[in-house]
Amino acid sequence: MARVIRVDLTDLRVSEEALPEDLRGLGGRALTSELIAREVPPACDPLGPRNKLVIAPGILSGTAAANSGRLSVGAKSPLTGGIKESNVGGNVSARLARLGVSALIVEGTAPVGAMHVLWVSRDGAELRPGEEYRGLGNYDVVERLRKASSGTLSCLSIGPAGEMFMSSASIAATSTNGYPSRHAGRGGMGAVMGAKGLKAIVFGDVQGATVALVDKDAFRNAAKIWSDLVDDHVITEALREFGTPNTAGAIDAVGAYPTRNFSSGKFEGVEKIYGQTVHDVIKERGGKISHAGCSGCIIRCSNEWVDERGDYVTSAFEYETIWANGANCGIDDLDALARIDRMLDDCGLDSMETGCAIAVAMEAGVREFGDASGAIELLEEVRNGTPLGRIIGNGTAMVGRAFGVRRVPVVKNQAMAGYDPRGILGQGVGYATSPMGADHTACFAPAQSVFGVSEYVDPLKPDGQVEYARALQVDAAMLDALGLCQFVAFPLADNRVEGMSAIADMVNAKLGTSLTSDDLAELGRNVLRTEIVFNRAAGLTQASNRLPEFFLTEKLPPHKVVFSIPEEELDAVLDFGPAKST
Amino acid sequence: MARVIRVDLTDLRVSEEALPEDLRGLGGRALTSELIAREVPPACDPLGPRNKLVIAPGILSGTAAANSGRLSVGAKSPLTGGIKESNVGGNVSARLARLGVSALIVEGTAPVGAMHVLWVSRDGAELRPGEEYRGLGNYDVVERLRKASSGTLSCLSIGPAGEMFMSSASIAATSTNGYPSRHAGRGGMGAVMGAKGLKAIVFGDVQGATVALVDKDAFRNAAKIWSDLVDDHVITEALREFGTPNTAGAIDAVGAYPTRNFSSGKFEGVEKIYGQTVHDVIKERGGKISHAGCSGCIIRCSNEWVDERGDYVTSAFEYETIWANGANCGIDDLDALARIDRMLDDCGLDSMETGCAIAVAMEAGVREFGDASGAIELLEEVRNGTPLGRIIGNGTAMVGRAFGVRRVPVVKNQAMAGYDPRGILGQGVGYATSPMGADHTACFAPAQSVFGVSEYVDPLKPDGQVEYARALQVDAAMLDALGLCQFVAFPLADNRVEGMSAIADMVNAKLGTSLTSDDLAELGRNVLRTEIVFNRAAGLTQASNRLPEFFLTEKLPPHKVVFSIPEEELDAVLDFGPAKST
Repeated sequence: MARVIRVDLTDLRVSEEALPEDLRGLGGRALTSELIAREVPPACDPLGPRNKLVIAPGILSGTAAANSGRLSVGAKSPLTGGIKESNVGGNVSARLARLGVSALIVEGTAPVGAMHVLWVSRDGAELRPGEEYRGLGNYDVVERLRKASSGTLSCLSIGPAGEMFMSSASIAATSTNGYPSRHAGRGGMGAVMGAKGLKAIVFGDVQGATVALVDKDAFRNAAKIWSDLVDDHVITEALREFGTPNTAGAIDAVGAYPTRNFSSGKFEGVEKIYGQTVHDVIKERGGKISHAGCSGCIIRCSNEWVDERGDYVTSAFEYETIWANGANCGIDDLDALARIDRMLDDCGLDSMETGCAIAVAMEAGVREFGDASGAIELLEEVRNGTPLGRIIGNGTAMVGRAFGVRRVPVVKNQAMAGYDPRGILGQGVGYATSPMGADHTACFAPAQSVFGVSEYVDPLKPDGQVEYARALQVDAAMLDALGLCQFVAFPLADNRVEGMSAIADMVNAKLGTSLTSDDLAELGRNVLRTEIVFNRAAGLTQASNRLPEFFLTEKLPPHKVVFSIPEEELDAVLDFGPAKST
Repeated sequence: MARVIRVDLTDLRVSEEALPEDLRGLGGRALTSELIAREVPPACDPLGPRNKLVIAPGILSGTAAANSGRLSVGAKSPLTGGIKESNVGGNVSARLARLGVSALIVEGTAPVGAMHVLWVSRDGAELRPGEEYRGLGNYDVVERLRKASSGTLSCLSIGPAGEMFMSSASIAATSTNGYPSRHAGRGGMGAVMGAKGLKAIVFGDVQGATVALVDKDAFRNAAKIWSDLVDDHVITEALREFGTPNTAGAIDAVGAYPTRNFSSGKFEGVEKIYGQTVHDVIKERGGKISHAGCSGCIIRCSNEWVDERGDYVTSAFEYETIWANGANCGIDDLDALARIDRMLDDCGLDSMETGCAIAVAMEAGVREFGDASGAIELLEEVRNGTPLGRIIGNGTAMVGRAFGVRRVPVVKNQAMAGYDPRGILGQGVGYATSPMGADHTACFAPAQSVFGVSEYVDPLKPDGQVEYARALQVDAAMLDALGLCQFVAFPLADNRVEGMSAIADMVNAKLGTSLTSDDLAELGRNVLRTEIVFNRAAGLTQASNRLPEFFLTEKLPPHKVVFSIPEEELDAVLDFGPAKST
C-alpha cells in the first residue's frame, strides 16, 4: 500500500518506495502538487530532465464512492510555466488505486530519439522499448497495447503532438469503453511525457483487488448517502440525458457563449450543436446518448457519437470541445466537429486549447470563420508537424504571437473555456486567478450564476464575485484531491452539510482519520497555497493574474459588458493567510 | 528646449509639452526607462494601445562630444515582457537633440490596417498618411522618404517584420551614409512601432541649429580631453582598421565563440569570416573598411561591404551579425552573410535574434548547419510572412518552442550574443541578470577578460565575476544615458579617473550642473533600479535571471566548462540597495 513508483528515463531505472509518512492519505491534486513542490525546481525547463510528471489517483479513487474515478496528472507546465494539475477520467485512476499505487513519478529524459512504454502491475513496474509505437495516434497505440496485454486495457498514452513536445499535447486515458477518448488535456502534460521519451503507461489487471478500508461498514453507509445525494439531483438528471453539450443552450441564453474568438456571447448556430441536437442525432443513429466514461460513475454524462452508418466516430464528445471548435470558430456542423474531436483525441491535443488556437488563426485570416474543412486541414498540419501545425499545436498564445493578433483569450498562456469572462464575471475571476491559468474546472462559476444551483450569483454584477470564485476554487481543489468528478459539485452545493459530511465519513472510514468538513476545505486551501508558492518561485506573479486587455475594453454583445473586477480585488482572491496548523 | 513630442495613434493627435521639471537634463536610456516607468502600465499588452514607444537622444547627443551619437528607443518589449532600451547609432540622435527634442512618445494604436508617417521639424510634428509605404523594406522606404524630403535624410523606419508585429522586428535608423543599416534591433521595438501603425519617423533638417551649452568654453576643453582619450587607444585603432569583425579571432582564440547553436566555443571557419578577412576583401573590392556610421563618431568602426563588381551590398556589417548568422549557423561565406545582413536590415530584423533563431531551426533539422542558401530561404519566409517565417521572425525562443528544441540560448526570451557564457563567465552573469534579457551591450565582459583592457578578469574563474558584471552594467547604463557609444568603455576603463572627469565636465558644461563621477555612476545605478522595479511589476522575477539549463550541464568544447555561478550570487548582482538621495 501507498506504493510510489519512480521511473527515471535518463538511466532507465524503475524503483519503488513508500510514500513519505507525512503524505500518507493524500491523493489526487493534493499529492501531485505537493510532490512537485518538493521535488521539481520551480525554474527548471518544463521539457528538461529536472521536471517530473507525477500521476496520482484521488483519495477516494478505487473505492465504491460514486464518481471517484478521477486521476491527477501534474508537472511544471510547458504552456503556463507554472505548476499544473490536469485532471482526467476513464478507467486509470481506480485501477492505479487498486494496484496500491499512490503516486507514479516520471523523471529524467531519455536520449533524443528513444521511446519507451512503462508497464505497471501488482508485482512491479518495467520499462520496455517502445520504438514500434513511435508516431502512432492514440487510437492505434491503444489497439496495439490491447493486443499486447491481457484483460481490460487501462493505459495512458500520448499521440504525435506529445512526441513533438507541443504545448497543447494531452495525455490520453482509456475510457471504460476502451477508447483513448478521455484526456488530461490542459497545460501540455503530453509534451512533458513526450520529452521524457515515454509513449505509454499500461496498468495491469488488478484481478479483484480492492482499496483497503479501515472501516468497511462505515464506508458503505457513507457511500450510500453520497451516492443517493449525487443521483437525486436535477443537474445529474440533465447530464445523464443530454450530457455536457446541454450546457450550450444555457450559456448562449445568458449571452456568455464565446463565438468567433470571443467576439460575441451568442452564436446563431447554437441549436445545431447544443445538447438536444447531440442527443437526438446520436439516438437516431443508434449511438450512445449516455454512458459511464469513468470508473465508478453514476452520472453517466458521456456519450458515443456515430456517423450516418452508425459507426463509432468518437466518445466523450463534450460541451467544451464542441464549443471551442464549434461556436468559437463559427462552425455549426456536428459531424465535422465529431471528426475534429476524433482527430484531437488521436493526435493527443487539448481540445479547448486547440479550438481556441484555430479561432485565433481564423481571426488572423489563416482560414475563415465557419470553415470546417479549413479547421480539419489545420489539424492535419498539426499531425504532420508542419510549421503552421507547430504554431497551432503550441497553443492559442503562440498563434497570437506568430500572427500578430491582439485578441488572444488566454491567462498564463492557457486558453479559456466556453464561458466568456465578461458575461459570467465569476468565471473571469477564476480564469485570472487560478494557479492553473484560465481553467473552467478550477472554478466553475456557471453553477450558481447560470444553472440555478444553491444561491443565485448574478453573472453581470461585480459584487460578491471574488468571494464566490474563491469558494469555488477551494472546492475544486478539494474535489481534485479526493478524485471526485467536478459534476458532484452541483448536488453538493445544494446539500452542503449532508454532502460534506458524507465525504468526510468516507475519507475517515477509508483512512481511519477523524477529519471534519472544515478539514476538507482546508485541504483544498492547502493545495492552492502550495501551488501559488511554486508558481511564485517559477516566476509567476500577480501580473500573471490578469485577463487580456480586450476583455477590459471591448464590450461583449449582446449585453455590451466588459470585465470590471478591479485588479486589487483579483489580488485578494487566493490570499487565505497561512495554513491552519493541524 | 526640452521639447517632448507626444503622438497618439488612436486619435491621430500630435502635441508638444515641456519635459517635467524633475526630468530635465536626463537623456537616453535614463529618460526612456523613466518615462516608461511613469507612463506604461507594467502588465499591459506590449502590442496594445497602453504600451508606449519612447525615443530619446542621449544627454550629450548633438554636442561635439566624441561618439555621442547614440539614440535610445524604449518600450515594454514584446519579446522579453519587460522594459527595453534598444540602442542605435546613425544620424538620428544628434538630429533629434538639435531639434531641441528631449523625448518623442508614441502611444495608442491606429485602427487595424492604417499606416502613418510622422514628420518632425523645428516647427512642429505632423502625422501624414503612410499607406504608400506599406510592405516596403527599409531600403525602399528610405529611398522614397529621401525624395519626399529636403537635405540629408534622417529617419527611423520599420520593414515588413515590424508591420507583422514580429518579436524580432527592429527599428532602422539612417546611417550617416544614408542607408537604413543601423538598427535598434533588440527586443522587438519594430513590432511596437508596427502595432501603433507607424511606418517611419522623419527628422527634418536642423539648418545649423546646435544644442545649447551653459558654458561653451568649458565644454570645448572637456570635449578635447575626451576626444583625445578615445582617439588614442589601442582598441580604437583596431576598430578603425578592422571594425567589429575583428572580435571573432579573439573570442574564438579563448574558446568562447558560439558555434552551431552554442555547441562549441571554436569555429573551424573563423578565419574566413574574421576581421582581417572582412578588411582584406572590402579593400580589394574597393569598399569602405572604415567610416563613421554615427554622428560625431571618431572611432569609425563601421564599414561598407561591396560585391565582386564593387557594388554596395550592406553597411555596418558587424561582428554580431556575422557571428550569429555565420559561426552560429556553421556558415563561413562572407558574401552570403553580407546578403543576409542586407536582407535583415531591409526586412527590419534583429540580426542576432534572427541568426540564433535560424541556428535553433537548424538544430531542429529545418535546414542543415552550414547551409547558407537555406538560411537565405528562411529569411525569405520571414519576409513573406509564411508560417515558418512567422516562427523564425518571432525569435529564438519561439523557434525552440515550435520545434521542441531544448538547447535554446535565451534569457528572458531574448537571444544571446556572440560570447558563450560558459567561456566568459562574466558575460553569462550579464546575460542572466540584465533587465534587458541576454544582451552583450548591457554588460560587455570580454573587455577585461579577453581584450586586455584594465585589470585582467580570468574568463573561466568564477571569482569576482559578479562584481565585474555589476560594474559593467552600471557603466553601460550610464553610457546609454549619456548617448555615448559603448566602444568608449575601453579607453574609459584604461583612463578611468581622467575619462569620468571629462564626461562629468562635459555634462556640467552643457547643463550648468556640478555632477561628480560618482553622480554619473549613480545615474547608471538608478537606471537599473528603475528598470528592475518595472520588470518586477511586469511579472519578471529572479526566476527569469537564469541561464537555460544546458549551459549548466553541457560542457563547452574546447575547455569543457559549464556555467558555474551559483543562483544566489546571480540574485545579488543588481541589488544596490536604495538610491542615494541627492
